[in-house]
Amino acid sequence: MSGFKYEILKVDAKTGARVGRLTTPHSVIETPVFMPVGTLATVKALSPEELKELGAQIILANTYHLYLRPGTEIIQKAGGVHPFMNWDRSLLTDSGGFQIFSLSKLRKITDEGCTFSSVVDGSKHFMTPEDAMAVQNILGSDIMMAFDECTEPNCGYEKAKDAMERTLKWLDRCYKVSQDDSKQMLFPIIQGNVFKDLRVESAKRTAEYARCGIAIGGLSVGEPKPVMYEMLETMLPYYPEGQPRYLMGVGSVDCIVEGVFRGIDMFDCVLPTRIARNGTAMTFRGNINLRNARFKDDFRPIDAECDCYCCRNYSRAYVRHLVIADEIFGGRLVSIHNIRTLMRLTEKLKEAIYADKLTEFHDAFMAEWKDKADVD
Amino acid sequence: MSGFKYEILKVDAKTGARVGRLTTPHSVIETPVFMPVGTLATVKALSPEELKELGAQIILANTYHLYLRPGTEIIQKAGGVHPFMNWDRSLLTDSGGFQIFSLSKLRKITDEGCTFSSVVDGSKHFMTPEDAMAVQNILGSDIMMAFDECTEPNCGYEKAKDAMERTLKWLDRCYKVSQDDSKQMLFPIIQGNVFKDLRVESAKRTAEYARCGIAIGGLSVGEPKPVMYEMLETMLPYYPEGQPRYLMGVGSVDCIVEGVFRGIDMFDCVLPTRIARNGTAMTFRGNINLRNARFKDDFRPIDAECDCYCCRNYSRAYVRHLVIADEIFGGRLVSIHNIRTLMRLTEKLKEAIYADKLTEFHDAFMAEWKDKADVD
Repeated sequence: MSGFKYEILKVDAKTGARVGRLTTPHSVIETPVFMPVGTLATVKALSPEELKELGAQIILANTYHLYLRPGTEIIQKAGGVHPFMNWDRSLLTDSGGFQIFSLSKLRKITDEGCTFSSVVDGSKHFMTPEDAMAVQNILGSDIMMAFDECTEPNCGYEKAKDAMERTLKWLDRCYKVSQDDSKQMLFPIIQGNVFKDLRVESAKRTAEYARCGIAIGGLSVGEPKPVMYEMLETMLPYYPEGQPRYLMGVGSVDCIVEGVFRGIDMFDCVLPTRIARNGTAMTFRGNINLRNARFKDDFRPIDAECDCYCCRNYSRAYVRHLVIADEIFGGRLVSIHNIRTLMRLTEKLKEAIYADKLTEFHDAFMAEWKDKADVD
Repeated sequence: MSGFKYEILKVDAKTGARVGRLTTPHSVIETPVFMPVGTLATVKALSPEELKELGAQIILANTYHLYLRPGTEIIQKAGGVHPFMNWDRSLLTDSGGFQIFSLSKLRKITDEGCTFSSVVDGSKHFMTPEDAMAVQNILGSDIMMAFDECTEPNCGYEKAKDAMERTLKWLDRCYKVSQDDSKQMLFPIIQGNVFKDLRVESAKRTAEYARCGIAIGGLSVGEPKPVMYEMLETMLPYYPEGQPRYLMGVGSVDCIVEGVFRGIDMFDCVLPTRIARNGTAMTFRGNINLRNARFKDDFRPIDAECDCYCCRNYSRAYVRHLVIADEIFGGRLVSIHNIRTLMRLTEKLKEAIYADKLTEFHDAFMAEWKDKADVD
């Protein structure tokens, strides 16, 4: 029996955006959901307890990185990523495909699989779709991602089409070795770059492999935001019914609002923790660069409306001091704030969907949003 | 009325070592005590809540570093270090003297004060004993340290004597501007390098200025450990009665045992957090370098006898993985473990004193201690 189910609790009347509930063997996840990224079996700077206090029901780990370091042998001995890192809620692992394409030099792709060199020590590795599944079996994630070929923006139609076809062939192989969904669920990935016909075709053919969730890959990789939104609109009619839709690698405030507005249920990104460590705080109106000198004696919280540990206890002046002095606690505090901001955002989005007012929420929110400015 | 008192609860019959209770306006501190160091108004990588959970009743902050960054103006606006960093227990600030001597190039010392260049930006500063008190008044620490001149090992007798005399002159000036001990208590500092006669003279003359505590400076600065122990034995008869004795800059397991054995009540050092961030864990039998390959699949806790958050939840294999991958959470976990180890150590020392068995405890403990080895 499958350990997974997805229930749709409410559909926004105008947009079709949903509030849902995804159940995995480890936890119940309300969607729309933002999933913090714990690349190396740790969400940078944070403890599992802090993540729970922030409201995280699911986090990510990266197959590529864990495969290289500490290696699958050690994680197997530990009994999987969950006990290794002391995380007892849901876990999603990507397939390693994206990192092979974005991080590794000297990669070589054939229909059989990928040869790539390690970003850690340059050593050579070969990975097939079956390998990517086997590694994720060892990692023990609740949600496994299919091994896909992600293309760059402006790669051209033919290359995008080839990669889409290869991704579908690889998906078939991933599917064949992951039939048992009692403990782990395979999410297939739609590709097709920025070409509408490829996106539609990929969505249709990928949907056939989806049992409790489908993912959208190859977006938020450098293309303009309006192009990403157009692709989401294009794919919207072709998702499998009654399943969550996961837009991979998206984690900015505006893109989450725009994504939910276009039917997306799940998001992940390193963005909130990465920019946090550099002193950039997220708010519903735009980002704040705490390194800015005008915050040096600003004793207000980062965001007066935020209920996070950082905003309840610390001033912009203190956090700025920590960031400027390169103190670890500064990165911790801003990471906490940024993740909490995205959690609060999905709460607001749910409320709007329950009230059948997502369009009004979206329009009002985006009118206030400052994409480039450093807001006060 | 003074906000401070020190009560001696028990004296070990053979050694004279004590269990005591120091009350400040912010908290009650049981001695012997280890005080974690929060150089820049943050104990590196840790939150105030974590420090409390570890049992910390008092932490340090460094006047020199805070004076340079963020600067006294900002801390004054914040209302002091306590509200700035969200710490509501006791706080001790050093005077800046030690850092001026150990960190700053181009320092110039006269009887009036010190000229030094900032370690942050090279800017030139001049600080007198009165300035050091005024800055500590703004920082709002419970315990302020006198402005002293610390000498290096092997500086020679004449230089050591001159520095001792200057320290006493400066102490007189510090004392004159810090008579009000309702909120802040001045701890004078004994100097005298490794010369017994100077240590005795400094102890006697410094004791005249001590109201609720005296400090020992200029040790643990590079001299051999047996020399430090000899100096402690030399000074033991000359401390002021009924007051705590603070050995500055000492925080290794063995030196705390040896220090308490020789009448010391208070310790501070960056050691436990500094070595933690490099992957070195403290135990009662010696240090463990978690980078060692033999820990890569060691799923035991760092120390099976330790009750800290790290040892209750994480394996050596996981912590090693984090340390090797330079993950912030690794430094957090080992910092937590190391500070807790020193807290547990002072608990054990108190028990031994209460049982009049400190000598037996000391002898058995030091027989097990491995100074250089990487224990298992």
